[in-house]
Amino acid sequence: MAAMDMENNGDNSDHQIKWKFQGNKDLNAASISVRGILNMLVDNLDKSDQRPCIMLGRGDPTEFPSFRTTPLAVDAVTDALRSFNFNSYAPTVGVLQGRRAIAKYLSEDLSYQLLEEDVYLTSGCTQSIEIIISVLARPGANILLPRPGYPQYEARAAYEKLEVRHFDLVPEKDWEVDLDSVEALADENTAAIVIINPSNPCGSVFKYQHLKKIAETARRLGILVIADEVYGHLVVGSNPFVPMGEFASLVPVVTLGSISKRWIVPGWRLGWVVTNDPTAILRKTGIVESIKNCLNITSDTPTFIQAAVPQILEKTNDEFFSKIIYIMRQAVEVLYETVAAIPCLTCPVKPEGSMAVMVKLNLPLLEDIVDDLDFCLKLAKEESIIFLPGVAVGLKNWVRITFAAELVSLEDALGRLKAFCQRHAKK
Amino acid sequence: MAAMDMENNGDNSDHQIKWKFQGNKDLNAASISVRGILNMLVDNLDKSDQRPCIMLGRGDPTEFPSFRTTPLAVDAVTDALRSFNFNSYAPTVGVLQGRRAIAKYLSEDLSYQLLEEDVYLTSGCTQSIEIIISVLARPGANILLPRPGYPQYEARAAYEKLEVRHFDLVPEKDWEVDLDSVEALADENTAAIVIINPSNPCGSVFKYQHLKKIAETARRLGILVIADEVYGHLVVGSNPFVPMGEFASLVPVVTLGSISKRWIVPGWRLGWVVTNDPTAILRKTGIVESIKNCLNITSDTPTFIQAAVPQILEKTNDEFFSKIIYIMRQAVEVLYETVAAIPCLTCPVKPEGSMAVMVKLNLPLLEDIVDDLDFCLKLAKEESIIFLPGVAVGLKNWVRITFAAELVSLEDALGRLKAFCQRHAKK
Repeated sequence: MAAMDMENNGDNSDHQIKWKFQGNKDLNAASISVRGILNMLVDNLDKSDQRPCIMLGRGDPTEFPSFRTTPLAVDAVTDALRSFNFNSYAPTVGVLQGRRAIAKYLSEDLSYQLLEEDVYLTSGCTQSIEIIISVLARPGANILLPRPGYPQYEARAAYEKLEVRHFDLVPEKDWEVDLDSVEALADENTAAIVIINPSNPCGSVFKYQHLKKIAETARRLGILVIADEVYGHLVVGSNPFVPMGEFASLVPVVTLGSISKRWIVPGWRLGWVVTNDPTAILRKTGIVESIKNCLNITSDTPTFIQAAVPQILEKTNDEFFSKIIYIMRQAVEVLYETVAAIPCLTCPVKPEGSMAVMVKLNLPLLEDIVDDLDFCLKLAKEESIIFLPGVAVGLKNWVRITFAAELVSLEDALGRLKAFCQRHAKK
Repeated sequence: MAAMDMENNGDNSDHQIKWKFQGNKDLNAASISVRGILNMLVDNLDKSDQRPCIMLGRGDPTEFPSFRTTPLAVDAVTDALRSFNFNSYAPTVGVLQGRRAIAKYLSEDLSYQLLEEDVYLTSGCTQSIEIIISVLARPGANILLPRPGYPQYEARAAYEKLEVRHFDLVPEKDWEVDLDSVEALADENTAAIVIINPSNPCGSVFKYQHLKKIAETARRLGILVIADEVYGHLVVGSNPFVPMGEFASLVPVVTLGSISKRWIVPGWRLGWVVTNDPTAILRKTGIVESIKNCLNITSDTPTFIQAAVPQILEKTNDEFFSKIIYIMRQAVEVLYETVAAIPCLTCPVKPEGSMAVMVKLNLPLLEDIVDDLDFCLKLAKEESIIFLPGVAVGLKNWVRITFAAELVSLEDALGRLKAFCQRHAKK
């Protein structure tokens, strides 16, 4: 706002007033985010560098031409908009035809049918996380989160005062869940465990048997499974994507997802919360009611986007999906081979899915790099490449690299990375 | 979900498991909403009634043909979508050109210029309310809300454990704020006062002098003014709309708004939070930082809608706005005259703006009506008309009637209302 001259304004001068309001410090503590760290890295770019900045720090490849969404999805939204039938408020649980279409879409991978009333439409998976954390945040309760993980869970839990306990994903075991540590962490106040599959940030895709073991463990502990499947179907390796909902007869599962990643439209903000609840446990325990109540007092995604969901899901052809997978598969090969040839980096597991992979820094081999944040700051400044420091996802001295990128850009980035590592290697 | 037969499944039977999670009762208490009450009324409709149900219970006239948004706004969104340039995540504070366009738009009514950094884009005014309540919800703090008011404030405050204190809007004084009661309610822990102008639910439009008095009172008390101007410019009477931000040199003002009402697109979910902060008090007290932090951990409105804002604001012609005002002005005349002729109803103030008006029930003149909810339930059942019971907005034994409706539908509804009141009048 343009500064106003208040000095000559007599009784309006501010030193007479004791303003009684102030910001909420709980928000400040909770808001340490991936976006915040990425902003810091972007600020550290060398503006005199003539080369393009290559952003491999987030799961948003929309800037790369090969990752343009299908025009059929754009048409679906345009058609809904041009009908003038979807300018009204949507029902808080979501537009009926959208809920029904998601139920049908998810049921294709399940051995039972989801119904429209199992599906709640949200403003992207960000809001899905917000809702499920609000629903579980009773005083004294705790939640089990993966390390490394996706920090939006930690942020919302901190804000809602839901205690977080971290279990490890084990790189030596294909980033599988350390189930012993899960058993050790859980107590009478544990409400749920969060499983992100395909994994952000690890790039792993859990096998059927491992998912079953997770479900059995959760059942034994009496806790809910929150299945974050926002990267569902984005699989580049040999493990097929198995939705956690397949084990809902063992343990109730709340599935979170969105069209953001598979359709490459993170900015469209269309996600879901789905209750896989064949034995009506989520109903009996009040989880379903709380989800509905939470939706009553939050905003939602635009009605016309919700209304376009059936057409988006039905019309998109396999060719679009296959092309994306094909590009990402090539990207993984190039990335994995290049990193293997760089002494100061270790990629313990070749990525099987999602859009990212965790790479370990061998700091003793580097001359003047203090930690992962320092590595990423210098890489940004010297090479105009953005990686996410592992500390942002709970794993210090690792980095998260997004492989969903144009191949030519990725190769350019990896060349610069190699030069950077050589330059900083201990002589 | 299709029921699954769990009974024959050996160790999977549920009586062996003690599930440890349950819903969050804070959400249940907070979620008593306008939408919930309207759903109850809709459920009470007589399905055998051949006449169309006329919905005058909410600020969403999109179902009436005369309240169709301008095709220019639809074109703006379609253009942004078809460019394929706005499929990525938006900055958490909002897309730059959208923020700039809102700053310019709002500055047209102010004697100073807002800048883009004063504007934060939101997922509709619902999220704007969510954000400002979160920002102010420090332990022990309280907020002053109008009675009657808009219950989303009460719901979010209850959820965030921000204490609510109600001041009265006085029907005998054109629904002006009872400033004596404001002074009496405020104490050391009062953070803010909410002013909704044009008023939902009263239909009043505050005069310049009254707004100035509110600002002076808030200044004296050292509290923030939250100016809910979601109905800004929707004025049908003689009082012009004056934005509260005009008094920001006296007291810091946070303005909430959206395109939902003026452009008749409540389902598009494009709103804003604006800091009117010429003396940097909101910065110094950490309010600005908390707003940004809150945006870091919540979802936002789709990027392509944000990107369409400049074109929506610039291209919409006055003819579109004038036509809507013209229809609403006619509607107010018909409504006010009809209600004046019904003995059991009193409309103390002819509406000046917004989309709704409060009408008092003279219960002693009615034979078999217990209260406002009973009135609305019977009206729904017998006449297929939906009004909002006053209890939903804090004023028992009143009703809120939306006058933003097709004239022919409104006249139909008023005819049925008259018949209903005659039928239920004490003989």
